[in-house]
Amino acid sequence: MAVPLQLFPLNGLPMIKPGDDLPGLLLRVLTENNLRIEDGDILVLAQKIVSKAEGRIYKLSEIEPSAEARRIAETTEKDPAFVELVLRESAEVLRTRPGTLIVRHKLGFVCANAGIDHSNVSGPEGTGDDYVLLLPVDPDGSANSIKERIEKETGKIIGVLIIDSHGRAWRLGTVGTTIGIAGFHALVDLRGWEDIYGYKLRITQVAAADELAGAASLIMGQAAERIPAVLARGYPYPLSSGSVQELVRPKDMDLFR
Amino acid sequence: MAVPLQLFPLNGLPMIKPGDDLPGLLLRVLTENNLRIEDGDILVLAQKIVSKAEGRIYKLSEIEPSAEARRIAETTEKDPAFVELVLRESAEVLRTRPGTLIVRHKLGFVCANAGIDHSNVSGPEGTGDDYVLLLPVDPDGSANSIKERIEKETGKIIGVLIIDSHGRAWRLGTVGTTIGIAGFHALVDLRGWEDIYGYKLRITQVAAADELAGAASLIMGQAAERIPAVLARGYPYPLSSGSVQELVRPKDMDLFR
Repeated sequence: MAVPLQLFPLNGLPMIKPGDDLPGLLLRVLTENNLRIEDGDILVLAQKIVSKAEGRIYKLSEIEPSAEARRIAETTEKDPAFVELVLRESAEVLRTRPGTLIVRHKLGFVCANAGIDHSNVSGPEGTGDDYVLLLPVDPDGSANSIKERIEKETGKIIGVLIIDSHGRAWRLGTVGTTIGIAGFHALVDLRGWEDIYGYKLRITQVAAADELAGAASLIMGQAAERIPAVLARGYPYPLSSGSVQELVRPKDMDLFR
Repeated sequence: MAVPLQLFPLNGLPMIKPGDDLPGLLLRVLTENNLRIEDGDILVLAQKIVSKAEGRIYKLSEIEPSAEARRIAETTEKDPAFVELVLRESAEVLRTRPGTLIVRHKLGFVCANAGIDHSNVSGPEGTGDDYVLLLPVDPDGSANSIKERIEKETGKIIGVLIIDSHGRAWRLGTVGTTIGIAGFHALVDLRGWEDIYGYKLRITQVAAADELAGAASLIMGQAAERIPAVLARGYPYPLSSGSVQELVRPKDMDLFR
């Protein structure tokens, strides 16, 4: 008998600043929201709060754009210093158009602007258009250390998912998407499972972590700073270990080229 | 204060056959699952049960493949009659490779095999590899008529979402994806919303219906025939009207070409 999937918003998380003890703050708001961690729960975190806690804030006026960054900035109508940071974070530029810069991030996955966020970033001197926020250096590692700390404090086995809003090649609108994961598989392989007629399933790989990312993103809304953390209960697959690398489409299977 | 998002599996739906009264069966299993429809609920249905109720079952041995279908069947290593049906359902072929046939469906969206499903289809003479299942002719219309019938019987205002499993150009694994919608917007426009610093949000369009599709798909699992219907409660955006066409990326914005 299938059980419900429930996603609880963690209301009341304070504004995260570089150096903040994010797992400690999460444990506090869990209590404030009358939620007690159970085995099998998954904490879903907006990338922004993880990046901020890790101090991944850069000041554009301190970045010297390269010639390539200036050239791409012209094509894409973006700030050259911003493009310079995107290039430093990227393994490969895939598409440039006015308003659009799609890259393969050094972490392997494809996204716009290497996931660098302009809005809602404050630096040491306050808030301004001059500050941008980069993805965590190692989002799987970030997820793992948050997981270990919360497991140590609660004695429960959990998963942690770090998500961002990504566009799609073929459809309009962004959806919540995995950028880091710990404690469960991003990709679920159903090979060998049979349907009710005994047919072997043909679509065998489900991006279950991305489906959960979408679910949590619905609650976070786009103003993810307001509710940047969600507790998911009733995730239907067993916890184990995982990496965002499971979702990276190898170049020879790339449908984009 | 944000509220939880809850997704309840509708256990016990019988095998759907052509001509079945799907809304009536859904109302019955809702009761059997001790769920009472509330205003704002969204019923999420696997495409398969809608297609089956509508009799969208074809027998491959009765399909005469065209020369183009035979050519593409060779490239993609697929059955020529199957490819013929894909072509009839498609506006445009986008990618052909061994094992892969990506098209723009006549309905506008991009998907593999025009959404035609081979597994778990039974015809009038039983079950076999010879039967395939096509998408509903008008999934928005299907969603709308299910919505109207259930609203009439319950007196509540609801949404209906019809979903399928789609691959992505840039990432491995399938995710639950909208193919038909009624009663709420597929794309939520957050233009003009401000974040907590007063910055206008830059990512303004969220494919909220696809995020919900992913959430429901998690519960359905890939063996969607077992739990092909999910009740979603706590959807954070207001109900209104909607169409899958909101999610179709116009050709001039296509990031794929």
